[in-house]
Formats: sequence, structure tokens, C-alpha cells
Amino acid sequence: MSVSPMVLLLSSLAPTASQAQDAPRPNVVIIFCDDLGYGDLGCYGNPTIATPNLDRMAAEGQRWTQFYVGASVCTPSRAALMTGRLPVRSGLCSGERRVLFPDSAGGIPASEITLAEALRDLGYDTGMVGKWHLGHLPPYLPTSNGFDSYFGIPYSNDMDRLPSAPEGRAAITKPRVEYFNVPLLRGTEVVERPADQRTITRRYTDEAVRFIDEHKGGNPFFLYLAHSMPHVPLFRSDEYEGVSRRGLYGDVIEEIDGSVGRVLDAIREGGISEETVVFFTSDNGPWLVFGRQGGTAGLLRNGKGSTWEGGMREPFLAWWPGTIPAGGMVRDLGATMDLYVTSILLAGGTPPGDRAIDGVDLRPAFFGAGPSPRDSMLYYRGTELYAARLGPYKAHFITEEAYGRDTNREAHDPPVLYHLEHDPSERFDVSAEHPGVIADIRALVDAHRETVEPVPNQLETRIGGE
Amino acid sequence: MSVSPMVLLLSSLAPTASQAQDAPRPNVVIIFCDDLGYGDLGCYGNPTIATPNLDRMAAEGQRWTQFYVGASVCTPSRAALMTGRLPVRSGLCSGERRVLFPDSAGGIPASEITLAEALRDLGYDTGMVGKWHLGHLPPYLPTSNGFDSYFGIPYSNDMDRLPSAPEGRAAITKPRVEYFNVPLLRGTEVVERPADQRTITRRYTDEAVRFIDEHKGGNPFFLYLAHSMPHVPLFRSDEYEGVSRRGLYGDVIEEIDGSVGRVLDAIREGGISEETVVFFTSDNGPWLVFGRQGGTAGLLRNGKGSTWEGGMREPFLAWWPGTIPAGGMVRDLGATMDLYVTSILLAGGTPPGDRAIDGVDLRPAFFGAGPSPRDSMLYYRGTELYAARLGPYKAHFITEEAYGRDTNREAHDPPVLYHLEHDPSERFDVSAEHPGVIADIRALVDAHRETVEPVPNQLETRIGGE
Repeated sequence: MSVSPMVLLLSSLAPTASQAQDAPRPNVVIIFCDDLGYGDLGCYGNPTIATPNLDRMAAEGQRWTQFYVGASVCTPSRAALMTGRLPVRSGLCSGERRVLFPDSAGGIPASEITLAEALRDLGYDTGMVGKWHLGHLPPYLPTSNGFDSYFGIPYSNDMDRLPSAPEGRAAITKPRVEYFNVPLLRGTEVVERPADQRTITRRYTDEAVRFIDEHKGGNPFFLYLAHSMPHVPLFRSDEYEGVSRRGLYGDVIEEIDGSVGRVLDAIREGGISEETVVFFTSDNGPWLVFGRQGGTAGLLRNGKGSTWEGGMREPFLAWWPGTIPAGGMVRDLGATMDLYVTSILLAGGTPPGDRAIDGVDLRPAFFGAGPSPRDSMLYYRGTELYAARLGPYKAHFITEEAYGRDTNREAHDPPVLYHLEHDPSERFDVSAEHPGVIADIRALVDAHRETVEPVPNQLETRIGGE
Repeated sequence: MSVSPMVLLLSSLAPTASQAQDAPRPNVVIIFCDDLGYGDLGCYGNPTIATPNLDRMAAEGQRWTQFYVGASVCTPSRAALMTGRLPVRSGLCSGERRVLFPDSAGGIPASEITLAEALRDLGYDTGMVGKWHLGHLPPYLPTSNGFDSYFGIPYSNDMDRLPSAPEGRAAITKPRVEYFNVPLLRGTEVVERPADQRTITRRYTDEAVRFIDEHKGGNPFFLYLAHSMPHVPLFRSDEYEGVSRRGLYGDVIEEIDGSVGRVLDAIREGGISEETVVFFTSDNGPWLVFGRQGGTAGLLRNGKGSTWEGGMREPFLAWWPGTIPAGGMVRDLGATMDLYVTSILLAGGTPPGDRAIDGVDLRPAFFGAGPSPRDSMLYYRGTELYAARLGPYKAHFITEEAYGRDTNREAHDPPVLYHLEHDPSERFDVSAEHPGVIADIRALVDAHRETVEPVPNQLETRIGGE
């Protein structure tokens, strides 16, 4: 059981000959939400949010139940998806400022090879629509990092608050578009400011559908559609006002569900279903401190900002008619970093060999040909490793509340240990019963630490600062 | 919004003419589990319990997300299902002894008209397999209450503990068949004691399949299959040992899932799918005090024994190929008492007109023809009404922990108020914002109380007692 991520990686990069030969080079579409909880979709047990399009996507494809993101907040999680690496390797994480802000001077380093760059080098057309949050200064924007085109907001929709906004939380819980001076970019140009967030999900969808229509039949394409929602402040278009039994939050999710329906319809009607793989997930768990305006992690503990399962385990759907078997549930482990590796392999390439990559090849699991090669997960908060999972066991070396003045940070030696598959809500510490498991997890962590090199922190530098 | 359950009932008993004419008289199968939680099935979001047969049943039928039982513990919940009435009307509930025990002298009164009696009077053949728990003395057994045949245990599988069993909880968490002197009955005869619980789910299934095979093509039939599991002590047959990623509890659920698959296969292979309606649910929520040997209520609060949602909201699947539309999710309200009313109506009868009935006619919702007529729910603990729901709002007049020495019972005036559809986990009290809603709920409760007549308590009398 004592294996390092690098060992995992090497073994997982050897698909069988038949897999490599049979698979076409598909278009790749990644639909990424913001702060969506594990329990927010109908097909994940939500009682009052109707998600018929996502439920259908699940029924036609795969629904995963142990799928992870690279961090429990926005910037580092997106860095993990785009680089295939834990954010500690790119410098896009910090314990102080946990994400990039409008006054941040940093962003994704030029040395990183983004998924868009890797796929473009393999002949793909690349487009991004939505929230980026890996740096808003010119060198960091999507069009400087592998995307042919970009339409979206560069950071979170609750930033750039204007003096007209009420103090404190009221600006978020009773939001108006004009409170948040967030820019909407096309390429590198600001085309609207503040972005009209009421229509932003619809307009993202329009852009995504147009991209698909324009690119079908040409080169293979990579489309990254990163919704700004359901991150607070919540907005939805008139068409979705009051549609959900779940209130405003439900309306917002149901608009995203409608968006997924439009994207899949564009793929179906474009006749490219069998040559397009679509992944759906989110950057991190629900922002619980926002109460009814935040989502739910279902049976998982805690949410966004924490290294409990509710912060880093997400709904994940994979759809590729004719290749990914319909109606499957996958209870193996997966992570957004694996989408980096897997997408590059599907495109006929090889993940970068000159650096540590934390993703593994999920093709066996997608194709129904075998188990996922992932059997571990590392849970960072900022630059500190708080917890690690090996097989079904998760050890918490540090626990801490997600937010608040007193976050009750606590270090544990021995670590608190949960059997996540028997105890998905992390209720029953079994550390006393399994010293050998703890030793294995410590070895995993030690092996991982040896692969981490010091890099400049991208989140602490400020515009005009030192 | 101020409507009484009786008003609901009268309006709901008027199906459209076309519904009444078109529907055949179906066979009725009710599969009832014991202590299954809202979050325990794959199709309700469980990450590590595999329930492919139940997931398929949901995909071929309907999955409900706001379906209630009549009480949060065994005996009164089963009384509600069998009589269509809240257990306070039949005397099968108490605040002291919350269920019937082996020394109990009481049981279901002869004056009650059970669902089996009602359907037998309509020409149905009736059979019961499994756990009864409405009285084990002769007048109370299933064959004295409308069932032509019976095979099962008369009360809970953790009762009748023998001296050989270890003290306290160890008998349950590390159970052996011989610790529990529970009898297995055929008709009214004890055929095995202690019942071999290791094979009990398989043998129940064998009986149910045999019943279906023997009755197909004859009179319409009513089969009530009430599993003893997953009530602790947990047992499963050799075939299911170690099959689940969720451990012992998962094995037990996966054996029940396999049982559902066998029952539906018997119906399919018998060629009676289109004339058989199958309902699947459980008596109450998960028994959380048993930790990893108990289930999960998913995102719902608390579990068995409490009047929080986790105690009384259950997974509910309805399956009737050709009549119940496939793949539907129903977010309307329903309850086990409605199965009483609806089954009688489907059989061409009329629910008893000489007494208060708390069920409503769910045919419109089953047929996809309209909303469920239910818009309220009453939450009793013993003979006391703790909470009431009207539309999306639930008022807690009393809250109390499910179990324990200090259950922290608290009365609330005004009641604590939750919007269950916006806040399914019952986190945010909105009583201050909605005095009108509270007034409506008080009126609902007052109207209900006027319909409740004093009856002898069936749970407090003991064999040989006064």
C-alpha cells in the first residue's frame, strides 16, 4: 500500500495498446462550476433542485462519487486543473491570501504548461468561456496561456466592490449588479464593467454553443466553460427567476443545468457526440457560511475552504456516447489533475516529462476497462499539507474550520484517521486501530514532499507592492 | 394555505373519470426496509453503497424526494402504513415504550382495517413476508389481520436477547445469531428459533419470489415484503460477505438491492410487469447511534427516533412499467399512509368512510397527470405532536434528541420554523419572518386534533401485567 504519487503516475501512463489505437482524438469540453456542492444535483440526491439535463448526462455517461479537486478554494483548484499539478508546485496557493484578488500582481507562471497549451500543441483549437482566476494582468490571462479565445471574468464575481455597495454581507445576500465592478473581458479587452451578472450564465452558454458550432468538423477542439455561478452573489437570468423549489440558489443551479442541456444539444445536433468527451465538475465545495445562498455537500462533512471531504470532493460526470458506457457509477478515485493527464493522452500526446505531474490516466475507468489507477489524494490548505488519503483511509494531520475569526486550528499527532468508504461523513476516528495505515500514509507524504520544489508565491504579491 | 387533512382527503379522493377507467387493477407489492436512511442508496447520492437494482428501478419508475413515514420508529410507522392512519388513532404509539416488545400484550386492534383486509375484501390474494411488529400474540399476527400467508419475524431482530449474549452494545456490534432468540414464524407457528438471521434476507426473497410465481395469472395479489434489515444486529448471507466498499452495512444494503432485483425479475419473467405496481421504502431513518453500523440520512438532519427530517423522510421508489412514467423524479409530498389509500383505489375500492384516514390519493402524481394532493405532514413522537409541515414550511413545537439519557427536550413558542425546500437540512429558523405561516400551521394542527379520538394504548400493556 505504500506507494508514491510518482509511482502511480508512471504505471498509469501505460495504456494498453488496444486502448491507444482504438480511441479517436476527441474534442474535449470541461464544464466547471464555482462552489457547487457534492449534494446539489438531483442525481446526487438533492431533494428540491431539479437538474434534468445533468441527470440525463449522468444516465448517458458516468457519475463518479469519489472525485476530488486540487484545493478547497478557487485559484489553487483552477491551477490544479490547468496544470495537472498540485498548486504548491506552481505557487498558486497561500495560507494568507487564499486566492488572487484584483490587487494581486501574480498569476500562473509562464513556465507552467497549461492544458490549453498542451492541447494546442497537439493541433487543437482552444477556447475559454467564463471565470479564469489565475491572474488578471496580461501575461496571466487565458489568451496568454494557450487559449485562442476568451470571454469571461478574470476573478471572482464578489470582488471589486464599489462604494455604492452596502457594508458587510448585505451586498452579497441582496446583491445588485452595480455593487461589483468586475470586468467582463473578450480576449484581453474589457467589454463591459461591471459585468451584468444577471445574464452572465446565459451569455457564457451562448458563447460556448457558438464555439462548438464554429469548430465542429474542423480541428479537434478544447472548450473550457467555467461558470461564475453558483459563487455568491447569486444572479440568474429572468427566464430562471423563481423556477426552483430551492429558491434563488436553486434557480442558479437550474440555469446551469439548462446551460449544460444547451451545450450537449449543440454537440448532439452538430453530429459530434461520438467524437466529443464532456466533463462536468466544480472547483470546490459549497460556501456554507452563506447559508441558504450556499449549497450543500450532502452527507460529506464541511465545505469550501476546508480540507474535510465537503470542501474537496465534487460531483463529477463524464459523457462520451459510444465510448464511455452509459449509466455507470464509478466509486473509484479521480481528481481534476487527472483530467489534465487523460485529456492529453486522449489527444494523442504525452504529459510533460520534465516536471512532477500529479494526475493519473483515467482512461481505463472511463472506458470501463479497469479500475482507476488513483489510490491516493493529498489535501492542501495554502502551502501546508493538512491531510492525505491512501486507499479508503484519510489521515488529518491538521484540522481547521473553513472560515471565521477563530478557525480552531489543531495539529494532530498521531493524525485523526477516517475510513472514508465506511464513514463518508468523517465521524469515527480509527487511528488507534490502524497504526500501520498511518505509517503508510506518512511514507506517502514523505515521498511526495521530496518532489516539491520551492517556487515563488503568486498570491502574496500586490500591484504596486514590493 | 390553511387546510385540514380531511379537506385534503376529500378533494384527493376524486380521480378524473379517465384515470379511474383506464387503470387496470394491478397487483400491489410493497417492499419495506427497516432503518434505511435517506442517503443510503446510489440513486440518492450514497458514494460507496452499490444499488444497481434499485437505481434501475428508479430509472424505470419514479424517485420521490419528499416522502414521509408515519413515525420515526418501527411499530407506529408500520401501523401507519397498514391502516392509512396516524398511529395516534390506532393506539400503536407511546412516548414511554416507543415500540412493541416481546413482553407486550398489545397489538393492532381488530377494529382497524388493514391494507391486507381491504384488498382481500376486493378479491386480492394477500401474502406477507418479513418483519411485522404490530403484535406477536395470535389476534395480532398478520394471518389474523388480512394476510392469507405469513413468513417472518414478529418483532425486531435485536429483541429477546439470551443470557449467552455479551452485556451492552457488544451483542449488537459483534453479533451472533444465537444471541437473539427471535422466532421465525410460518403462519402462526414458530418454525425456527432463534431465527437464522444470516440467511434471512435471502429466505424472505425466496418466499416473495415463490409467492409471485404461484399467484401470477390468478387473482390480483398484494405482497408485503418487509425486510428485517438493515436494523442492527446486521447479518447478511455468505454470498454478500465483503462485497461492498461500505463494509458490513453496505453488504446488507447490497443484499437487499439484490433481493429487489430478484423480485422485479420474477415480475418481469412472469410477464406481469404491466399489471404490477411496486413500491419501495423503509419504516424510518437511520439509527445513527450505531455509527458505522447505521446508515446515513444524507443531507437531512438527524435520524431514527427523531422528528427531524432524517427520522421520517425516506427513499421512495414507485415502479409500474407502462403506467408510471420512467425516469421521473417527484419532488411533491407523499407518505406511506397514502399508499394505503392509493392501493385501495387502484384495486377498485374506496377507503373506509367511517373513520379518519390520513392518506391521500397519489394517483395523479404516479400517473404524471398532476401534482400530489398532499401538502402537509404531521410529525408525532409517541402520542405527542412535535412538528407539522404545511407546504414547504415545518414548525417544530417540540425538539428532542432521538436517544440518550438527556435528550434535551425543548418546547418552543413560537415554534422553530424551517423552509424545508430552501433549507432541507433544517439549519435556519425563519419563525420571526413568517408569523402568518405559523398561524396557518397552528390552524392545521387544531383541525387535526379535533379528529383524534382517545383510544387504548397498545404499547404500555404487558403480558401478565395489569
